[in-house]
Amino acid sequence: MSKKGKKKLAIIVHSGTLDRLYCAFILGSTATAMDMETHLYFTFWGLNALAKGGLEKAGLPATYKHLEEQMKKKLGVMKYPSPYDLLKRMKASGLLKIYACSPTMAMFDVKKEDLIPEVDEIAGAAAFLEIASEADITLLV
Amino acid sequence: MSKKGKKKLAIIVHSGTLDRLYCAFILGSTATAMDMETHLYFTFWGLNALAKGGLEKAGLPATYKHLEEQMKKKLGVMKYPSPYDLLKRMKASGLLKIYACSPTMAMFDVKKEDLIPEVDEIAGAAAFLEIASEADITLLV
Amino acid sequence: MSKKGKKKLAIIVHSGTLDRLYCAFILGSTATAMDMETHLYFTFWGLNALAKGGLEKAGLPATYKHLEEQMKKKLGVMKYPSPYDLLKRMKASGLLKIYACSPTMAMFDVKKEDLIPEVDEIAGAAAFLEIASEADITLLV
Repeated sequence: MSKKGKKKLAIIVHSGTLDRLYCAFILGSTATAMDMETHLYFTFWGLNALAKGGLEKAGLPATYKHLEEQMKKKLGVMKYPSPYDLLKRMKASGLLKIYACSPTMAMFDVKKEDLIPEVDEIAGAAAFLEIASEADITLLV
Repeated sequence: MSKKGKKKLAIIVHSGTLDRLYCAFILGSTATAMDMETHLYFTFWGLNALAKGGLEKAGLPATYKHLEEQMKKKLGVMKYPSPYDLLKRMKASGLLKIYACSPTMAMFDVKKEDLIPEVDEIAGAAAFLEIASEADITLLV
Repeated sequence: MSKKGKKKLAIIVHSGTLDRLYCAFILGSTATAMDMETHLYFTFWGLNALAKGGLEKAGLPATYKHLEEQMKKKLGVMKYPSPYDLLKRMKASGLLKIYACSPTMAMFDVKKEDLIPEVDEIAGAAAFLEIASEADITLLV
């Protein structure tokens, strides 16, 4: 639990595919709507999805690639919010903090200015572990 | 911990492939055998696996597809319980609760009557987060 | 928290691909550097990666296979420690315990002598759940 008595959710977002980004962002936006502090630490393919234009390009993994077009069409018909919409909604709550994994940035030659402006902090794994060890729910997507 | 003083395991089952369903169900059936309350929240491909006949059709992901036949044969030789067998075993303990993710059902046009009868509740992410925030172990498969 | 007052990290390593092994091992080696007790329970593809020579052969999953050569080259240029190097580093801290999943070993015909010598214990899921229920952070990679 956080110092302000709020419950705390900490998610490592390792994946960059649409299904798993949605999973993380639906959990996160539900959590902020429930007044929980939400911490998302983006690493590997998840970090790459935070590059400008990255969230818009996310598709399904190889196993489900054949369902991608159908899923995107259905989401359009449902007027389902995009991953970036969900991220902005969480951000607007004032309860979301977004971390970009610094070793991943070095590994993939991603610079701070390549990332969407919603990123709060560039940080190593220690920062995440510190937060996660005080969280009520810890997950890796 | 639960009100009855039992330890509590909460797993989001996002995956629908055989390897990961086994992972979730082996953890879950071990937990119920240890007298832990077990909560499985099925979303995305995991939810699709709960459609009638879905667990029987589960195979390996693209990366390991070439090992699928060999693995299924070996499981047969070992007389290893199927995923559905494990699910029924957990259910029989009285300690398992199964949730089906309502947004996923809308996204994939899955109706309540399409799902196996073992599902306890159709629920959004808030129900899961509420339970997970009181759990001793939280995982996403 | 452990009996010695140390924070405790428990990770199920289900994956055997390079990106996810790195994810688990970077978290683990950061945790041991922060004086946290670290418990890694290897199952399925993760267990297979603990066979002698397995960590060296790990590559990217099907979705990202086309980036494998480029990523390995970049890691070489950065002189980034290999997964096995990170594992040995965690081990040297005296804070890491490695578990090999016994049902997975039966399923894939892996014998104790096939595994790298750093494995501490061959154990079923109950051993992991016992530890995870006392941990501050629980994750599945």
